[in-house]
Amino acid sequence: MSNRTEISTLGEFGLIRHLTDKIELKNPSTLKGVGDDAAVLDYTDKQVLVTTDLLLEGIHFDLMYVPLKHLGYKSAVVNFSDIYAMNGRPKQITVSLGISKRFCVEDLEEFYEGIKLACDIYDVDLVGGDTSASRTGLAISITCLGEGEKGKVVYRNGAKETDLICVSGDLGAAYMGLQLLEREKSIFNGEKDFTPDFSGKEYLLERQLKPEARKDIVEVLDQAGIVPTSMMDISDGLSSELLHISKESNVGCRVYEDRIPIDYQTAAMAEQFNMNLITAALNGGEDYELLFTVPLADHDKVSEMKGIKVIGHITKPELGNYLVGRDGGEVELKAQGWNSLN
Amino acid sequence: MSNRTEISTLGEFGLIRHLTDKIELKNPSTLKGVGDDAAVLDYTDKQVLVTTDLLLEGIHFDLMYVPLKHLGYKSAVVNFSDIYAMNGRPKQITVSLGISKRFCVEDLEEFYEGIKLACDIYDVDLVGGDTSASRTGLAISITCLGEGEKGKVVYRNGAKETDLICVSGDLGAAYMGLQLLEREKSIFNGEKDFTPDFSGKEYLLERQLKPEARKDIVEVLDQAGIVPTSMMDISDGLSSELLHISKESNVGCRVYEDRIPIDYQTAAMAEQFNMNLITAALNGGEDYELLFTVPLADHDKVSEMKGIKVIGHITKPELGNYLVGRDGGEVELKAQGWNSLN
Repeated sequence: MSNRTEISTLGEFGLIRHLTDKIELKNPSTLKGVGDDAAVLDYTDKQVLVTTDLLLEGIHFDLMYVPLKHLGYKSAVVNFSDIYAMNGRPKQITVSLGISKRFCVEDLEEFYEGIKLACDIYDVDLVGGDTSASRTGLAISITCLGEGEKGKVVYRNGAKETDLICVSGDLGAAYMGLQLLEREKSIFNGEKDFTPDFSGKEYLLERQLKPEARKDIVEVLDQAGIVPTSMMDISDGLSSELLHISKESNVGCRVYEDRIPIDYQTAAMAEQFNMNLITAALNGGEDYELLFTVPLADHDKVSEMKGIKVIGHITKPELGNYLVGRDGGEVELKAQGWNSLN
Repeated sequence: MSNRTEISTLGEFGLIRHLTDKIELKNPSTLKGVGDDAAVLDYTDKQVLVTTDLLLEGIHFDLMYVPLKHLGYKSAVVNFSDIYAMNGRPKQITVSLGISKRFCVEDLEEFYEGIKLACDIYDVDLVGGDTSASRTGLAISITCLGEGEKGKVVYRNGAKETDLICVSGDLGAAYMGLQLLEREKSIFNGEKDFTPDFSGKEYLLERQLKPEARKDIVEVLDQAGIVPTSMMDISDGLSSELLHISKESNVGCRVYEDRIPIDYQTAAMAEQFNMNLITAALNGGEDYELLFTVPLADHDKVSEMKGIKVIGHITKPELGNYLVGRDGGEVELKAQGWNSLN
């Protein structure tokens, strides 16, 4: 049996102190972290990027199959991903938790372990936040600050006609991982002695439970002297994000089915589930890959880059947004991305 | 009957667009607000202050007696207060909401009206956030960024022996307002035809439902050339905050019962409720007044300032933290502040 220390034994200030007391600040831009009314940062010569996420149990995560350490890691990383998607570098995060009585101190230690691991790997300082009670379940609020170089911050609205559309990594795996976990959960609910069967599907699980932010891609582009004309991270699905870029940039787009990068485990799982693979890759969310556009002149450079695939190009706005199938037929892109309000 | 538009008719992106589409950015430091992966800010020559709050229905607020517009206003203002407490100026906020099915679009419009009103009054830009579903009730996550002048940011840890301890405004009124609302609520729960009786108690209600952040105090001190040696806002109660300053500054303190500023409505209400007035003023939270220390040399300046009261002084740490009663007796200060985890 694991230990269980009730949160009430520490109190609010005691708890946050306990969870954050060994945090070492790594970034010169962090002047003061946890422990005052506000954190104090110095961004001289840099632009400040801010993104925030509110994650609620039962809506954004299911603790039935998400270990708390993974949840902490993912909560942090998805915010880092938003900063990279601006061509920035994450530097600080704040973490606030609402905690129901179900949770004990050890649970929160586990969650913070995940947060701290992510902060270590991505060189980010945890600089604030608080803990309070919650009537139901766990509520996680994370804000991430990052720095952008003046003139190099990349928005969604800069895509130009003839630009190439690129994505990093592969798509649809996180969604398939979620389907897999949901299936095992429903089997588990009916059985007593149950060992989930995940062999050969580790990649799908990892993509769902422990995604990474594409720091490496942003660095590779920078080293090659490429500043994308527009960029987003793929959290709601490729279709949905492409439509954002088209709308914000006032352009259209063509992407090609046979260019969309898909891992073989994703394909195998889609077949097993009898799901349309391309739909999963277009609309499955949470891949946290980067979607970006570069000028046509960068074609040779990006084509050679490992982990980057050119999937289409930007058109005039009146040409709309279409997926070109293997047979040459065109299907209009629709935002069927994951939407917690529907 | 008021209109009720279901949130599902707008969808997640539609909803956030609807709520934020008429926002005009006011601050030169705001380069890009709502609508990308992150907001982009320019804080050249200034330090960046960051504070965040997670507010959960049933824990931090009760919609039975808090109108949504007031809730929006207060949620924003309490974050501004944290920035002023660093001797900073709030400049940007992000607002994320978790919304259960009980709420409709008009409810959120009302909430955002309060947020926008606060932003207008305090010259703050709303630059980001999102909305998602919630399984139960309303969850509000707010992050506020502000600017601090280099060398003039005030922490909790700078109080020195012989410094004067000052507070702005008066204390205990917000707590009495809460008691009053709770009483009327419990009466209301038992009766059908019920009109709450708040006459002569408007100030208490306003302090609870629509607090202000002490922008004016920070400006007056600045104009007088005073940089406090330490400062906090009083959200958990004077006792609790004094102990924070003592601990962080490694000092002790003496405050005088007869110097603690209390409004006559607070006093009248305490008598009516048969509560100890000084306990309410020491431990009642949510006043959002400023507690700060200044060097003894500033005595004449602060004594003349309207809305500021010198309530005691800083001592050596070994002398502890005490309230000196009207009879000269000393009572040790304890943190009995409001704590949602207990």
